[in-house]
Amino acid sequence: MRPLPDEPSAALRGWRLRVYTIIFEADTRAGRWFDQALIVLIVLSVAVVTADSVPAIRARLHHPLELAEWFFTAVFTVEYLARLATVRHPLRYATSFFGVIDLLALLPTYLALLLPEAHALIDVRVLRLLRIFRVFKLPAYVVEYRSLGHALRASRRKITVFIAGVMMIVLVMGTLMYVVEGPENGFTSIPTSVYWAITTMTTVGFGDITPRTELGRFISSVMMLLGWGTLAVPTGIVTAEMASQRLVPLRTPTTRTCHECLTEGHLPEARYCYHCGAELPPWLHEPRNRG
Amino acid sequence: MRPLPDEPSAALRGWRLRVYTIIFEADTRAGRWFDQALIVLIVLSVAVVTADSVPAIRARLHHPLELAEWFFTAVFTVEYLARLATVRHPLRYATSFFGVIDLLALLPTYLALLLPEAHALIDVRVLRLLRIFRVFKLPAYVVEYRSLGHALRASRRKITVFIAGVMMIVLVMGTLMYVVEGPENGFTSIPTSVYWAITTMTTVGFGDITPRTELGRFISSVMMLLGWGTLAVPTGIVTAEMASQRLVPLRTPTTRTCHECLTEGHLPEARYCYHCGAELPPWLHEPRNRG
Amino acid sequence: MRPLPDEPSAALRGWRLRVYTIIFEADTRAGRWFDQALIVLIVLSVAVVTADSVPAIRARLHHPLELAEWFFTAVFTVEYLARLATVRHPLRYATSFFGVIDLLALLPTYLALLLPEAHALIDVRVLRLLRIFRVFKLPAYVVEYRSLGHALRASRRKITVFIAGVMMIVLVMGTLMYVVEGPENGFTSIPTSVYWAITTMTTVGFGDITPRTELGRFISSVMMLLGWGTLAVPTGIVTAEMASQRLVPLRTPTTRTCHECLTEGHLPEARYCYHCGAELPPWLHEPRNRG
Amino acid sequence: MRPLPDEPSAALRGWRLRVYTIIFEADTRAGRWFDQALIVLIVLSVAVVTADSVPAIRARLHHPLELAEWFFTAVFTVEYLARLATVRHPLRYATSFFGVIDLLALLPTYLALLLPEAHALIDVRVLRLLRIFRVFKLPAYVVEYRSLGHALRASRRKITVFIAGVMMIVLVMGTLMYVVEGPENGFTSIPTSVYWAITTMTTVGFGDITPRTELGRFISSVMMLLGWGTLAVPTGIVTAEMASQRLVPLRTPTTRTCHECLTEGHLPEARYCYHCGAELPPWLHEPRNRG
Repeated sequence: MRPLPDEPSAALRGWRLRVYTIIFEADTRAGRWFDQALIVLIVLSVAVVTADSVPAIRARLHHPLELAEWFFTAVFTVEYLARLATVRHPLRYATSFFGVIDLLALLPTYLALLLPEAHALIDVRVLRLLRIFRVFKLPAYVVEYRSLGHALRASRRKITVFIAGVMMIVLVMGTLMYVVEGPENGFTSIPTSVYWAITTMTTVGFGDITPRTELGRFISSVMMLLGWGTLAVPTGIVTAEMASQRLVPLRTPTTRTCHECLTEGHLPEARYCYHCGAELPPWLHEPRNRG
Repeated sequence: MRPLPDEPSAALRGWRLRVYTIIFEADTRAGRWFDQALIVLIVLSVAVVTADSVPAIRARLHHPLELAEWFFTAVFTVEYLARLATVRHPLRYATSFFGVIDLLALLPTYLALLLPEAHALIDVRVLRLLRIFRVFKLPAYVVEYRSLGHALRASRRKITVFIAGVMMIVLVMGTLMYVVEGPENGFTSIPTSVYWAITTMTTVGFGDITPRTELGRFISSVMMLLGWGTLAVPTGIVTAEMASQRLVPLRTPTTRTCHECLTEGHLPEARYCYHCGAELPPWLHEPRNRG
Repeated sequence: MRPLPDEPSAALRGWRLRVYTIIFEADTRAGRWFDQALIVLIVLSVAVVTADSVPAIRARLHHPLELAEWFFTAVFTVEYLARLATVRHPLRYATSFFGVIDLLALLPTYLALLLPEAHALIDVRVLRLLRIFRVFKLPAYVVEYRSLGHALRASRRKITVFIAGVMMIVLVMGTLMYVVEGPENGFTSIPTSVYWAITTMTTVGFGDITPRTELGRFISSVMMLLGWGTLAVPTGIVTAEMASQRLVPLRTPTTRTCHECLTEGHLPEARYCYHCGAELPPWLHEPRNRG
Repeated sequence: MRPLPDEPSAALRGWRLRVYTIIFEADTRAGRWFDQALIVLIVLSVAVVTADSVPAIRARLHHPLELAEWFFTAVFTVEYLARLATVRHPLRYATSFFGVIDLLALLPTYLALLLPEAHALIDVRVLRLLRIFRVFKLPAYVVEYRSLGHALRASRRKITVFIAGVMMIVLVMGTLMYVVEGPENGFTSIPTSVYWAITTMTTVGFGDITPRTELGRFISSVMMLLGWGTLAVPTGIVTAEMASQRLVPLRTPTTRTCHECLTEGHLPEARYCYHCGAELPPWLHEPRNRG
């Protein structure tokens, strides 16, 4: 069950294959080093933007911080172009989940040239850290991440029914409170009242808007008890799903990525992608203990 | 196990049968189109009322919005009368769950002629969207919706015991705080103190009323820990119920509606209603893939 | 397995037996009527005290409400004395759970002669409504009530460990915030800071005290995430307990009460109390359908 | 299966063995008395510091309270030195979990000579009460404590994935609100906005910072619903873990402590530590009923 990898496909050879392996996969030493360096860069760039937003720090260090940001953006731009260059279907990468995140990580810096306020959105870059699990305790975390995602996907219909129900309740209750309390008590419009209804049903309770009339307070009390008890429902859904999942073992995947559809996690001995059927590029790796 | 449908009952023939099928059932193309159009109309009418409540929008667009509202109300009134006309027992429809909602969806517009503030209650109309699941992924959502309802119904006794217990606790604790803190600290009467107790036990915590004395703060601390831990109980009830439900398969129902008792979801080959035993009207449908 | 009841014990005969059956048990028509009347009286008396606390109502109706309160207190006092008179061991009743509640239901009115502010504590009387389940759907509710109590009792050790842990966390975190923020930011003493820590960990979040320094806000953030995740633990305990309980059927009990130890719920054919072994008084009842 | 204990190892004899048994183990009468006295002392010392922080009490009793604190600190210092003296590897004790807590319990008093504000941190001492379960209902509580810890450890990967996800969400959402609302609405910097995002997602909702713009309120609503539903995930993880744990029985442990690695809970008849393999010191105990 362990055939040797085939000849690589014509287009993915030489330097392109090497770069591809480093960037997209993490089973070689260079691949892992790349991932770790990438994470450090992402964290630093986010820290730079965050620090720049604090008035005390901005006053003194704005210029160096701004230089650092342009440095990071340059690095990430080169990396993004490298990804586009070494993948067989650049468009498919650009529209995949991670591709979109990688693009959103770059745009704010350029956007800020036109719209200064968008500048802080560089922090969206932190979503790139979703790749982080490929470096630490590789197989185990990928398994857990999938297990969580699987439980949520399997319950998605129940969750949808539930959310739709909640939406309707907050709209009706919010309108009711708008009619009962009125703009002079803070409930200035139906959208505002719905915002209040959501803060109340989710038990956040900011307190920026509160009911003043007795009838309003009575209706609020009913809503609070309803919201409190309703929290039980999504919890029950997800828990029941997880409890029934514990009998399905998952084989340890690698970071091996299909060049056609970008699905990760193929078995070491696989020759074809289980998702789209395309031929997989040769798997370059260095053996190490799985711990 | 698949007999051909019988002759329709005498009263439900011709145009009445046709209209009945379009309005109440969704297995024909016309039926599905009707449902989709209905949903669009409901959402639009709710959006109109919501927009009209925002002062900025009201100032400029009140007149067109008001015309739109009367248009929607007229359409829904005609639809409601059509329902009453094609159902065999109009009174039973009018008093059923959906019948009451359909009526409440109409009343506020007329009521607003007498009581302008009731105007916004038109949003109650959004509850009609509970029918929405008959259009999208039909069988699956109806099954999930029922599964959720079934879990709640089966636990209803435990939930009732629990709610009664909570009611007693907030009344006693609220009274205690009223005695300890007193009106000068915001606890102006027992009902007000009970309202505070509910905001605290449900962990909403508006902050419009807060304890000032040390004894009051101590009692609050006890209540908060109690409320926090008590949330575990309804969650446990519903979860245990759901976990034990996962062994009961449900056959795929249709939207077929009994003309006598308005129960939905009869099997395609059924000849009699499983709820009241009446003879079911012939099932007009166009075959399509169940996906 | 259905022997006829024996001769009643010497002390419980005649009028005493009759009164005992009416007050303590609810399987005769007179017994059920008594329970229902009792509940109505309790609810009315609580409503009277609650109304009397609202300034608007108090201004106009204080005198009639006060008369009504003395009437109710008189009735309950007579009932309490009747209970003491017909039970074999008055002291055991007076110190049992229900006995203490019944006494606490009476005391505030008398206490208010000395301490006017204690007056409102009459509402403690509402705890007497814990008996309410003997009237409505008798067996089912008693079963559910016990089932809930049983789940909580079985998990009591885990819950104790958990609560002790929470207590320690709020004390340490509260002290930390007291040191970091200091009295000038609202954290005036360690007890006050612990109160704040509890409002934060239980996610109530009144907002009467909030951290102002950056370090304080950072520590708060950690606490909030900790409290949010910690809620999972008691929920998990109770749920796991409930899920494992569903295999134990309970036979339908009656309200039959042991005259020695006041344990309720003996089987119709029982001759001896399962809790203390004493001989049970004859069971007077009228047959009715269990529905 | 119950061999007699061997000769003690050379270094642990005489008075050292006696003191070791009293301090570290709780199966002799002297050992239990020591533990109980220790708990009383810890509670008292914490109460003294807490009382000293309340301005009203401090004004009158500061001097006696301060004397009491030095007394307690002296006692605990002597006890700490005794522990170091009687354990075979003092460094291993000093760096173990309980060793660190015991040291942190002493430091604040000395630190306060240099930094008066650190004074209140003496309350950290309360963590020493984690030893409390060795006194009350010994075996049962240790079992429950371990069971809880075991459930959490087994789910640690899922919990880590979850927490990382939450961190990313609050950073992105906080930044978004910073851009949308801006400093003039209270969102003065990205760290402040992240703090707000955490108070909102955990449903604490202090209300010291609230969104004012409509877009900001809309984004908050989405966050609140997200946070509300996300609470289901850690609950599901822990519950599923606990439910599957209930089939593993644990034998009743003692407080017998390994002299090498300080692991507690060895069986009465054990001769070697199950954790590190070292020979266990003789087990001195007085027989008593296990209840």
